[in-house]
Amino acid sequence: MISSTPAAFVDRHIGARRDEHVKHMLNAIDLDSVEALAAIAVPDSIKQDEPLELGTALSESDTLAALRALATKNVQRVQMIGQGYYDTVTPPVIRRTVVENPAWYTAYTPYQPEISQGRLEALLNFQTAVADLTGLPIANASLLDEATAVAEAVLLMRRANKNKDAKNGITVLDADLFPQTIAVVTGRAKALGFEVVVTDLSAGLPEGPVNGIVLQQPGASGRVEIATELIDAAKERGAMVTVAADLLALTLITSPGEQGADIAVGSAQRFGVPLFYGGPHAAFIAVHQGLERQLPGRLVGVSKDDAGTPAYRLALQTREQHIRREKATSNICTAQALLAIVAGMYAVYHGPEGLKAIAERVHGHAREVATALDAAGVTVAHASFFDTVTASVPGRADEVVAAAEREGVNLRRVDADTVSISCDELTISAHVLTVARAFGSDVDAAPAPDARFTLPAEARRSSDYLTHPVFHTYRSETQMMRYLRRLSDRDLALDRTMIPLGSCTMKLNATVEMEAITWPEFAGIHPFAPDSQTAGWRELIGELEADLAAITGYDRVSIQPNAGSQGELAGLLAIRGYHVSRGDDQRTVCLIPASAHGTNAASAVLAGLSVVVVATADNGEIEHDDLAAKIEANRDTLAAIMITYPSTHGVYDADVRMVCDAVHEAGGQVYIDGANMNALVGLARPGRFGGDVSHLNLHKTFCIPHGGGGPGVGPVAVREHLAPFLPGDAATWNVGDDGVGIPVSASLFGSAGVLPISWAYIKLMGGEGLTQATTSALLAANYVARRLNEHFPVLYTGEAGLVAHECILDLRDLTARTGVTAEDVAKRLIDFGFHAPTLSFPVAGTLMVEPTESEDLAELDRFVDAMVAIRAEIDAVADGAMAVAESPLRRAPHTAAAVVTSDWDRPYTREQAAFPGATRTQDKYFAPVGRIDGAGGDRNLVCACPPLSAFEN
Amino acid sequence: MISSTPAAFVDRHIGARRDEHVKHMLNAIDLDSVEALAAIAVPDSIKQDEPLELGTALSESDTLAALRALATKNVQRVQMIGQGYYDTVTPPVIRRTVVENPAWYTAYTPYQPEISQGRLEALLNFQTAVADLTGLPIANASLLDEATAVAEAVLLMRRANKNKDAKNGITVLDADLFPQTIAVVTGRAKALGFEVVVTDLSAGLPEGPVNGIVLQQPGASGRVEIATELIDAAKERGAMVTVAADLLALTLITSPGEQGADIAVGSAQRFGVPLFYGGPHAAFIAVHQGLERQLPGRLVGVSKDDAGTPAYRLALQTREQHIRREKATSNICTAQALLAIVAGMYAVYHGPEGLKAIAERVHGHAREVATALDAAGVTVAHASFFDTVTASVPGRADEVVAAAEREGVNLRRVDADTVSISCDELTISAHVLTVARAFGSDVDAAPAPDARFTLPAEARRSSDYLTHPVFHTYRSETQMMRYLRRLSDRDLALDRTMIPLGSCTMKLNATVEMEAITWPEFAGIHPFAPDSQTAGWRELIGELEADLAAITGYDRVSIQPNAGSQGELAGLLAIRGYHVSRGDDQRTVCLIPASAHGTNAASAVLAGLSVVVVATADNGEIEHDDLAAKIEANRDTLAAIMITYPSTHGVYDADVRMVCDAVHEAGGQVYIDGANMNALVGLARPGRFGGDVSHLNLHKTFCIPHGGGGPGVGPVAVREHLAPFLPGDAATWNVGDDGVGIPVSASLFGSAGVLPISWAYIKLMGGEGLTQATTSALLAANYVARRLNEHFPVLYTGEAGLVAHECILDLRDLTARTGVTAEDVAKRLIDFGFHAPTLSFPVAGTLMVEPTESEDLAELDRFVDAMVAIRAEIDAVADGAMAVAESPLRRAPHTAAAVVTSDWDRPYTREQAAFPGATRTQDKYFAPVGRIDGAGGDRNLVCACPPLSAFEN
Repeated sequence: MISSTPAAFVDRHIGARRDEHVKHMLNAIDLDSVEALAAIAVPDSIKQDEPLELGTALSESDTLAALRALATKNVQRVQMIGQGYYDTVTPPVIRRTVVENPAWYTAYTPYQPEISQGRLEALLNFQTAVADLTGLPIANASLLDEATAVAEAVLLMRRANKNKDAKNGITVLDADLFPQTIAVVTGRAKALGFEVVVTDLSAGLPEGPVNGIVLQQPGASGRVEIATELIDAAKERGAMVTVAADLLALTLITSPGEQGADIAVGSAQRFGVPLFYGGPHAAFIAVHQGLERQLPGRLVGVSKDDAGTPAYRLALQTREQHIRREKATSNICTAQALLAIVAGMYAVYHGPEGLKAIAERVHGHAREVATALDAAGVTVAHASFFDTVTASVPGRADEVVAAAEREGVNLRRVDADTVSISCDELTISAHVLTVARAFGSDVDAAPAPDARFTLPAEARRSSDYLTHPVFHTYRSETQMMRYLRRLSDRDLALDRTMIPLGSCTMKLNATVEMEAITWPEFAGIHPFAPDSQTAGWRELIGELEADLAAITGYDRVSIQPNAGSQGELAGLLAIRGYHVSRGDDQRTVCLIPASAHGTNAASAVLAGLSVVVVATADNGEIEHDDLAAKIEANRDTLAAIMITYPSTHGVYDADVRMVCDAVHEAGGQVYIDGANMNALVGLARPGRFGGDVSHLNLHKTFCIPHGGGGPGVGPVAVREHLAPFLPGDAATWNVGDDGVGIPVSASLFGSAGVLPISWAYIKLMGGEGLTQATTSALLAANYVARRLNEHFPVLYTGEAGLVAHECILDLRDLTARTGVTAEDVAKRLIDFGFHAPTLSFPVAGTLMVEPTESEDLAELDRFVDAMVAIRAEIDAVADGAMAVAESPLRRAPHTAAAVVTSDWDRPYTREQAAFPGATRTQDKYFAPVGRIDGAGGDRNLVCACPPLSAFEN
Repeated sequence: MISSTPAAFVDRHIGARRDEHVKHMLNAIDLDSVEALAAIAVPDSIKQDEPLELGTALSESDTLAALRALATKNVQRVQMIGQGYYDTVTPPVIRRTVVENPAWYTAYTPYQPEISQGRLEALLNFQTAVADLTGLPIANASLLDEATAVAEAVLLMRRANKNKDAKNGITVLDADLFPQTIAVVTGRAKALGFEVVVTDLSAGLPEGPVNGIVLQQPGASGRVEIATELIDAAKERGAMVTVAADLLALTLITSPGEQGADIAVGSAQRFGVPLFYGGPHAAFIAVHQGLERQLPGRLVGVSKDDAGTPAYRLALQTREQHIRREKATSNICTAQALLAIVAGMYAVYHGPEGLKAIAERVHGHAREVATALDAAGVTVAHASFFDTVTASVPGRADEVVAAAEREGVNLRRVDADTVSISCDELTISAHVLTVARAFGSDVDAAPAPDARFTLPAEARRSSDYLTHPVFHTYRSETQMMRYLRRLSDRDLALDRTMIPLGSCTMKLNATVEMEAITWPEFAGIHPFAPDSQTAGWRELIGELEADLAAITGYDRVSIQPNAGSQGELAGLLAIRGYHVSRGDDQRTVCLIPASAHGTNAASAVLAGLSVVVVATADNGEIEHDDLAAKIEANRDTLAAIMITYPSTHGVYDADVRMVCDAVHEAGGQVYIDGANMNALVGLARPGRFGGDVSHLNLHKTFCIPHGGGGPGVGPVAVREHLAPFLPGDAATWNVGDDGVGIPVSASLFGSAGVLPISWAYIKLMGGEGLTQATTSALLAANYVARRLNEHFPVLYTGEAGLVAHECILDLRDLTARTGVTAEDVAKRLIDFGFHAPTLSFPVAGTLMVEPTESEDLAELDRFVDAMVAIRAEIDAVADGAMAVAESPLRRAPHTAAAVVTSDWDRPYTREQAAFPGATRTQDKYFAPVGRIDGAGGDRNLVCACPPLSAFEN
C-alpha cells in the first residue's frame, strides 16, 4: 500500500515543523525533544496517560468530501417559518470580500484601534444604521442574538430604572414575543431571582410596581401595533420600555424611539446574514441618550489621533477588558462583529431606498398571502402586519404545514390550530401560490393584495434614516469591493502578521476549515426546520460534541452557548441547577482567584452566585491559605470555584488537583475555564483532573476565527452528574420545566453555522496532530519567553522554569525607571508591522504573549527581534539620550503622513520611525492613524458615523 | 404582482447609475440623454434596428440557482482518463487567496512592472520551477495549452534551426504524442505549408532532411523511455529536438535538458489547477541558452529600479505589444498567467520533497495497477511508465471502460482493443482495486507493486531541482497565506483602482459571475469524460454560444479558442478553409490597416496568409484610395480584410460598410476584430453590418477577469457559410478530414472552466442591461475625453466630435516641448494610486484611456483630477521651473523608502512626491519599487528567481 498524502494537514497547521527549526528552538530552552518539554512542563498529577484517540486524520480533500457528504444530508427549502429567522441575500461581493476573506475574518477584536480603523468604521456603520432605524441615538456594536439581547435590555432596565416606585417592580413581557425570547428572559430571571410576568399588554399593564416592559414589533404573530399610548402609560408609572424590533420592518414602520421606547433590541440577521441553522447572527441594542454608559457589549466611538485626525476606537472599553467583575452587569465579551459588519455593509450597499424597496416587496408578498388565505375562507389573525401572517386553521395546522412542505415550503406550526407564514427577501409570488394551495385554496395566481391588509397610517414611518453619506456612496459592486478592500487594508489581521495575544490563541484559521460555512446546504437551513431536513447538521454537531468530550475528558457537551461568556453562564447554571436539585439552594458562593478573567465573575453574578475572591500568591498560584480560609468561611454555602487552567498567568500550576479536591471536599463544584485549552489538548483533560464543568472557546483552541470580535462559540462540557442541567431548547423551554437546563441562546445549537470549522479542524488533525499542536504551542511560547527574558523579564514560570503556551513580560520596572509604558511598546510594535500582545491583563503594566503553534520560527524571531530593538529604544530613554515624550516609543505608531512631512522635528530619524529593525520598506504597513486619545473619546462620546467635514484637513 | 428585486444586477455592474451623475456627465458633453449619445456616436449605417433580446435578466440569487442546477447535471467521477489531464488538489489556501481573490484575478498583464511586482514574482517562481524541472535554463511565463505549446516549439525549431541541411527539412512527431497534440501541430503545418511526419521514433529517424523532432515523455501510452541516443542522432543530423514532458514526472525522471533536448514543453495543469473540463491550464516552454530571444509568449526577467533594487519586469516585452506584425513568428498575447501562478505556488508550497512524494505516490499506484492487471492475465504494454498503464484487452475495451464507469471510475478507451489508466494525486488504492475488477480481476486488495514495473535506472533523475529558497520557505498555511497577501499587496488591481487601459476593457468581474468556476461540479470534470457526465457543461456552453451569436449577429459561434489570438487564428483559418473549398486556393492576401493590433498580422501569418498593409488617413479612418489600390492590386488573391471596429483609435468610423462592401465585391471575406465589442453590444452587430467572421474577447467585453495576463477566451463567430470551417475537436481530428475546421486548442471547449463567468454576465444583464452597459461605457469615455481634452488633446473623434468607448490622449506635442513622455505620465499616475492607461498603442507617444461602464463618476473624476494635476507638473517643466530629469514626473513612481529618507535632495517636496492631488494619506499605495530599467534588463536577461543576496541592502 502507498503512504498517505505527503503533506498532511498537521504540517500545514503547525508553523515550525522542520527538524532543524524545532531543534533550534529546543536548544534555546535547553531541552532535547518536544516530548521532554511536555513531560516537564505539565505536572505529573494531571497528565493524560493514554494518547488522544480521535480516528485517523483526514486529508484536506477528504475533509471537504466528508463535509460535502454531510451537506447533502441537509435539505434546503423555501423558508417561511420566520420566528426571528428570515432568508436573505448576502450580496456576493460581501460574502466573498468579507465572510470569505481572511483579511476580515482573522482580525482580532479592535482593542488596538490604530490597526483596526477598517473594522471600526464597518462597525460604526452598523451602529449608525441601527440607531437610525430604531430612532434611538446610541447603538452598540452587536450582541449575541435577539433573545439574549432582550435579556440584556431587561437587566439594563433593572439597573437603570431609578424610579423609587418602579425600580424593584416586576418585569413584564408581552405575550406576543417570540417563545425563545420569553424562555431566555425568564431563565435569566429565574437565575437572578427577579419576577417576570408574561401577559397580553394590549389589554393593559398589570397592577403593581413595574420595573420595565418589553414589547415586540412586529409581534411573533406578525401583528404591527403602534404602542405609543401603552408606552406613555408605562412611563407614567415609572416603568422603562424595551421594544424588540425588526430592522427591515423599521424601514416602513414608526420607530421604537419615536414611540417613546427607552431601548430597542433585535436581530440584524435578515440584513444579509445567512440563516446558518440558527446563528451566528448579530443582535443589536440601541438606547436613548443618558443610557449609553449602561450599554452592555462593545461600543465603537469616535475620538482623535495625535495629529487631530478623527479616529475610531472602542469607547468605554475598560468596562470590558477589566470587566467589572463581581459588580458586573453583563458578561458579554465576544460579540458578533463579523456578522454586524455584514449587516452594516448590507445597509451601506442597499442604502435607505434599497432597504425600503426590499421591505415593500416583503410586505407586498405578505399582503398577497393574507389576501389569498382570506379569499379561501381562512381566518387571518391580524390585518396589520409587516411580513408575517398568522392563520387560524382549527385542527388542521399539521396538515397545512405538511402540505406546504411537500411542495418545498416550510411554514411555522404555531399550535395545532394555527399556522404562520413569514415572507422575506427571497419570497416570490410563486411561493405565495404554494402557500395558498397548502391551505386549500385553488387559486392559480397570487392575488392582488387586498386594501384591508394595510399598515395603519400611524404605523407608517415618516422619518428619515440612513442619511449619512456612507449609505449613499457605494452602490456599484466595484465601489463596494474597493471600499471593503480599503477598510481591510487599514487593519492588521493574521493574514499579514502574527497576533501574539495572550489568552486569545490567534492561530491559523485554515481555508479548508472555513470553506463549508458559506455552502448553501449548511448556511441556508432554518433553525426550526423539521429534523428530516437537518440530518447533516445534527450528525456534524453530534460528532463535534463527542470529539470535544473525548478531548476534555467530560461526559457530555452542549455547543449551544454562542460565546465563551455564555458557556460560562451555562456551566454555572448547570452547577446551580445541580445544587438546587439536591436541595442545596443555599450553595451560592463562587470562589474566583484574583487573577481570573473578569468575565468569570460577571458570569457568576448572572448565574445568581455571589463572588468571593481568592488571593494570588507571589508565584502566581492560588494562595493556599487564603483558599482554605475562604472555603472554611463559606463551607455550607460553597457552590463552586472557577479556575482557569493553565492559569491566566500562563503557567501550569502544580497544585490544581489539590485545589479541586479541597473544593470538592467542601461540597463545591469545580469549574475549569477552558480559555487556555490550547495548552492542554492531548496532554491533560480537565474532566479527569478535577473539573466538573468547563467551557471551551472554539474561537481560540478550535480555529473559529475571531472575526474582528466574534462570532465565538463557547461549548459547555460537563461530567455526567451535571448533564441534566445542560441548556435546554429556548423554543420550547418553560420556566417550570424541571430536569431541563435553562437555555442560554435563542436557538438550540447556538452559532451552528460556524461549527464546521471546528469539526474540520479536529478531523484534519486527529488525536496525534492535536497533541502535536499543543506541544508546538508550548515550544513556541517557551522559545519566545527564553529569548525575551533578558530584555523583558518573564513574570511567572512553573516549577521547571517553563511557561505553558503563553508568557507575561513584566515591564513595570522599566516603566518605573523610564516612563516607557507597556502601551508604548504595544504601539511601537505597530511600526514594526505587529499586532500588540495582550496589554495589562492579567497584570497591569505587563504584556502577555501567546505565539500559538501556527507561527514559524522566522516569524517568532521577527517578533523577538522587534522586541529587542524596542528594548534598545527604551534603554536610550533610560540613558537620558532621549526624552520619553519625544521618543519613537511614545510617538508611535507613525503614519505615512507623519514621516512624509517636510517639517520633521523629532530627535530620531524618519527611517527609525518608519522602518525600524528589519522592516521591509517595500512591504511596509503604515498605521492609518497615530496614537488615539482614548480618554478624550470617552469624555465626548460619539458613536455614529461622523460627518465628512470632520475628515477635512 | 410584486416588482422584481429592487437592486437589479445592472445597477451593480454599471458605475454611474444615479440620475444626477448621469446628468452631470451628459451636461459635460452637451447632450440630453444617453440615447442621444448612442444615436449620435454610432453611425446610422450600422445601427441595430431592434433591441437586443436575450430573455429576462436574472437576479444574482437566481443566477446562482441556475448555475447550481447546471452544475448538478454534471457528474463527477474518479478521473483516470489521463491523456494530458489529471486530477489534482488545489491547496485550499491557494484557491481562496489566489483563484477566488480579486486582488489576484482582476489584475492586468504586468506591462507596468512597478505596480506588478507581486504577480511578476509569482510568475518568476513558475518560470524557475519549469526551468529546474525541465533542465533547461529559460522558461517563459506560460503558453495556452500543451498542444499549442508543441506547435509553438515546432515553429520555434523551424525558425531557429540554421543548419543548412536541416532547416528546410520535415518536422517529425513521435507517434506516442497525445492525439490532440498531433492534430494541432499538423493543423498548423497544413495552414503554413510545411511537412509533418508522424512516426514511431523508437524505430529510428526517417530518411532525409529533418528540421526538428518532437518526443513526449511519458508518452501517450504511458511509456517512459530515455531518448539520449535518439536525441544525439537527431542533432548529429542537424535536427532540433523538442520534448513534451510532464512536470510531475520530471521530479522522478531524467529531465529533457539532461537528455540533450533543445526545448521542453508541456502542461502545468496537474500542479494544482483543476481539470476545468479542459482548460484553462498553463502550458510551459523552456529552452536552452541561446534560444531565449526566440521564445514565444511572455518572459519575466529581473532588472533593477532607479535605486538599484532588484525588480521584476516582463523582459523583451516590446516583442509583444508591438508584436512583430507581418514578420511575426507567434501570435501569443494573452497567456494563462493566473493558472501559471497557481502552478508556481503549488511548487512553492510543496517544495521539491513534497512534489517528489506526490510523484512517488502516483507512480506507486500506477505500479499497483500494472501488477494487478498482469496478475489477472491482462497484457500491459510497457514495464517502464510513470503514471499511466496501457493495457491490451482485444475486443473488450468498451466493456472494461463501461465496467469501471459503473463503479465511478473513468478510464481511457484508446481503441477497441486498448484501455489506459492514469493515476494522479487523488488516486488511492481503492481506485486501483476498482480498476482491477473492471478488467475482470477478482483481487480484493491492491497488490504490492511488482519489481518488474520499475523505472529503469537511467530514467531515474539524479539532479537537484527547486533549490531556490522560495521553494523551501512557505510550508505552513499561515506562511503561504501571508506570502500571497504580501505579493498581492505590492500590486494594483481593479479591487483598488480603475485601470483605464484602452483596448483592454477592465470592467467589473462580479463575484456572482466568478463563484461557480471553482465549484467541483464544474471544475472537476475531465475534458474527455463521456457526454453522459457533462450535460450541464454542454448546456451552459450551448446557451453561451447562442447568446453570443445573438449579440454579434452571426449564425454560429465556437468558444474553443482559448485566447483572442487563437480566435483570430480560428477565424482566419475558417476564411482560408472557405476559399480552398471553393477552389480559390490562390486567395492568400490579407489586408490589415496600419493601426491594427499587431496580433492581427501575426495571426494572419500563422493562418498561411500574406499581409498587405492599408494606410491610415489623418482622421484615423482607413485611407480609402489606398484601400482601393490594394484591393485592385490583389483582386484575384484577396482572401480577407481584418479590421477592428470601433477602430483601435477609439472611433466609430463611418465608412465601415463601404470598406466591407469593397472587399466583398472583390471576393474577399471581412474579418472584424471584436476586441472593441464593448462599444457595440446592443447597438450594432458586426455579423449584420458586413462581417463574415469575428472573434470576441470574453476577458474584455464579457467579464472574464484578466488574471494578471490570462486566462482569456476568444470565441470565433461566423456567418453560416463559414460554419463548416469552425475549429474541430483535436482529440479526433485528422489532417485529411474535409469539412471540419482545423482545431486551434487542445480541448474541444478550450478554456471551458471560465465560461460560467460570461454565461452569468449575460444572464444577469439581459439584452437591455447589456445595451445600457454599452451606452454607459460610451458616456464614461466621452466624459473623460471632454474633461481632459483641454489638458491633453484627444487625437481622434468621430464625425460628431465624439469618441467611442475609449480615447487617445496625444502627448507628442507636450513631449516635444518639455521632454516629459507619456511613460512619465504613466509612472506618475502610480503615485496617485492609478494603473496607467495604455501606453503608445496604437500611436506612439500617446495614452489610450478606456474607463468602461463600471467606473462611477467619483472615480472618473479622481482620474481626471490626477491627470490635470500632472498637466500642471508638466507645465512647471515647460515654464522652466523644474528640469524634467529632476521632476516628480521623471522620478516617479516614488517608493516609501524614497520619500522617507533623511537625505531628501529633490526640488519638490516629499508631500508632492507621495501625496499628490487628493491622495488620501491613510490609504496611500506606495509602489514597492521605483522606475525600472527596462533596457538594462533586456541586455542582461535573468529569468529565474534571483538569489536572496541580490536583495540585501
